[in-house]
Amino acid sequence: MEESMQEAIQACVEAVKADQPLVPSITNTVTINLVANTQIAAGGSAAMVYMADEGAAMAQAGEAFYINVGTIFPLYQESIPRTIKALNAAGKPWVLDPVAVGMGGLRTELLRGMQEAKPTIIKGNASEIMGLAKAWGLLDQDQSVANKGVDSLHTPQEARQAAQLLAQETGGAVVVSGEVDLVTDGQAVYASSGGSELMSHITGAGCALGGLLAVYAAKADPLTAALSGVNAFNYAGQRAAQKTQGPASFQMHLLDELYQASPEAIASNPCQREEEA
Amino acid sequence: MEESMQEAIQACVEAVKADQPLVPSITNTVTINLVANTQIAAGGSAAMVYMADEGAAMAQAGEAFYINVGTIFPLYQESIPRTIKALNAAGKPWVLDPVAVGMGGLRTELLRGMQEAKPTIIKGNASEIMGLAKAWGLLDQDQSVANKGVDSLHTPQEARQAAQLLAQETGGAVVVSGEVDLVTDGQAVYASSGGSELMSHITGAGCALGGLLAVYAAKADPLTAALSGVNAFNYAGQRAAQKTQGPASFQMHLLDELYQASPEAIASNPCQREEEA
Amino acid sequence: MEESMQEAIQACVEAVKADQPLVPSITNTVTINLVANTQIAAGGSAAMVYMADEGAAMAQAGEAFYINVGTIFPLYQESIPRTIKALNAAGKPWVLDPVAVGMGGLRTELLRGMQEAKPTIIKGNASEIMGLAKAWGLLDQDQSVANKGVDSLHTPQEARQAAQLLAQETGGAVVVSGEVDLVTDGQAVYASSGGSELMSHITGAGCALGGLLAVYAAKADPLTAALSGVNAFNYAGQRAAQKTQGPASFQMHLLDELYQASPEAIASNPCQREEEA
Repeated sequence: MEESMQEAIQACVEAVKADQPLVPSITNTVTINLVANTQIAAGGSAAMVYMADEGAAMAQAGEAFYINVGTIFPLYQESIPRTIKALNAAGKPWVLDPVAVGMGGLRTELLRGMQEAKPTIIKGNASEIMGLAKAWGLLDQDQSVANKGVDSLHTPQEARQAAQLLAQETGGAVVVSGEVDLVTDGQAVYASSGGSELMSHITGAGCALGGLLAVYAAKADPLTAALSGVNAFNYAGQRAAQKTQGPASFQMHLLDELYQASPEAIASNPCQREEEA
Repeated sequence: MEESMQEAIQACVEAVKADQPLVPSITNTVTINLVANTQIAAGGSAAMVYMADEGAAMAQAGEAFYINVGTIFPLYQESIPRTIKALNAAGKPWVLDPVAVGMGGLRTELLRGMQEAKPTIIKGNASEIMGLAKAWGLLDQDQSVANKGVDSLHTPQEARQAAQLLAQETGGAVVVSGEVDLVTDGQAVYASSGGSELMSHITGAGCALGGLLAVYAAKADPLTAALSGVNAFNYAGQRAAQKTQGPASFQMHLLDELYQASPEAIASNPCQREEEA
Repeated sequence: MEESMQEAIQACVEAVKADQPLVPSITNTVTINLVANTQIAAGGSAAMVYMADEGAAMAQAGEAFYINVGTIFPLYQESIPRTIKALNAAGKPWVLDPVAVGMGGLRTELLRGMQEAKPTIIKGNASEIMGLAKAWGLLDQDQSVANKGVDSLHTPQEARQAAQLLAQETGGAVVVSGEVDLVTDGQAVYASSGGSELMSHITGAGCALGGLLAVYAAKADPLTAALSGVNAFNYAGQRAAQKTQGPASFQMHLLDELYQASPEAIASNPCQREEEA
């Protein structure tokens, strides 16, 4: 990674710890607590809402926003579009987590509608990134995309092209989470490693990362924020994995390590800028 | 327990670890995270939904399903019946957790409607098993059944007859959770021990067991799946209790131990087949 | 603190451990699991509901009730007023947690409606206590009250007058949570210390305290219950903080310590009755 990018990451992580930005969410009920605790551990201030008027109010009050469609409720038909409209009107960055894209009528309608709204950062596993690119008409409709519920059946490298196309479409950044996370702004592609296999043995590791990306998006441009998030999460994950062999204690250590991680350590996590294809 | 049953349990636990079956849920918001983490710790793939069309889609996509009515929402009036219809049309096994049966109009209506739908496995505490048997007209309507919110005021042995009647009604298996768990297919009754008193000092131990039963139901007949679940949970609970005296650390160790438990160890957990009455 | 108050706290904590009162909740989805586990760790029996008829049924069945408006759903328009009506008709104590007062139409409407209903105990951070007093017309409408999402931008001492006015309005007790918690019945003001800075680095410390207050409200007058809750929480928090430097392990130890805390130890937590102003 370029030294200038390392410095930008360090400054972003420091700014979050110093300012504790308010970063509200509309997110799923399964991992909502973990998302909030992850955001707080990094230095952010979390607030979760469901109602349309509260989404719009929080879009105004917050510095960034996290939208995760993991568990769809009927009221999202109104609250998600209205929140996004308020975010874009106010020029606030927001992170989209297109969980289980392709399942369900309302989920599909909401995710299609986000193409025009242009999320600042999109984060998903490989199946989700490929699925969203297909839903937005950016991938060949004949290309096969498979998932297993909320889990991926593809590797991040398989989703590399889809990630770049999504980033070019939005003008923001895209993160493909996996054993090695890919981050792209549509041109450059970075690969961040150091996480743990145990990440896949807890629910919500991806959601926690998404919430974390939104916190950093409050304090940096999309690519820097995305790189800050994946490197913070991988750094903490690697240290947590050294302390335990079980998934529940791993989750506990992951939050503790994220809380204790210094900006310097996060900026020094192994992360390679890949050669242009 | 018969040696053949021990072998069947071991095979079931191994199959889950090898195949990581997708086992979606409609479950309560209180313990939804614990249910997902329990399912994943055992080797399953979890996915939680609320919407009717997503319940039906997940019934098709999954290998089994968990339905827990702990916290009722209005949209369940449509989503639970439609999901069950899809499950039964596809011949997929599903586990019912009739939490707080007897409270509320919609809860009562939904649980009554499940008599015809015949859940593959029913799991509840003693009060819930007795309450469901009464709601389905299988117990004398004069028989007194008491509960305290979501907690039981009866012992599993008091619910023995109700459990057998329910299993005979559905043709599946029934689990009565408690200090010693009872498992029956309507004829044989097994008693699995080894859990911990600390189980009653955390919320969702019963829900976690229910979600776990659904994972094993993906890979075995109802009785084998039920015995796999209770023995896995009791084995992990006993080991977790040796490591701590507090409920929150107990919950953490419970998930860690479940993740690390070998199929052989689970199949060897103390479990007696009781003499016919 | 007066010796008679210490004795009353000890008796209250003992009664909860002995009787395990059922204390249902309508509470937010972010911290619902932590609230339940906190209530259970202290000896209570938790049960969470959303539907109006179930709120009313649980108001009847329970010994006290916890209402936290952290995450508003449309169905609360019916379920919260109906539950409160049932609570007051039955003379059951209830605790109000006016999270994020001032945001959103339905939240505002519900919180305004509670002025007449007179919650037994109100608990909030300083911004929430000041905001509720203002919403109820008890504070000068020109007084500035600021918050950051669900977080406070004021100290408990700044909310001292608002707390006293609220307690005088309801005839109950008010708790202002913060580094030092204030408790008042409208006349006397107590300051309980001993908690941990780590409390502010997890989500739901305030909600957990609110749920705990409701458990103690089942067994004592409002002031005694409020003092029991804050001292139990601070005692456990201080001990937990001695065992860890990270927020997730702190939360685990907090619940473990609460479970293990003796009534004597809780009653002996540092808590000063302040001189009348």
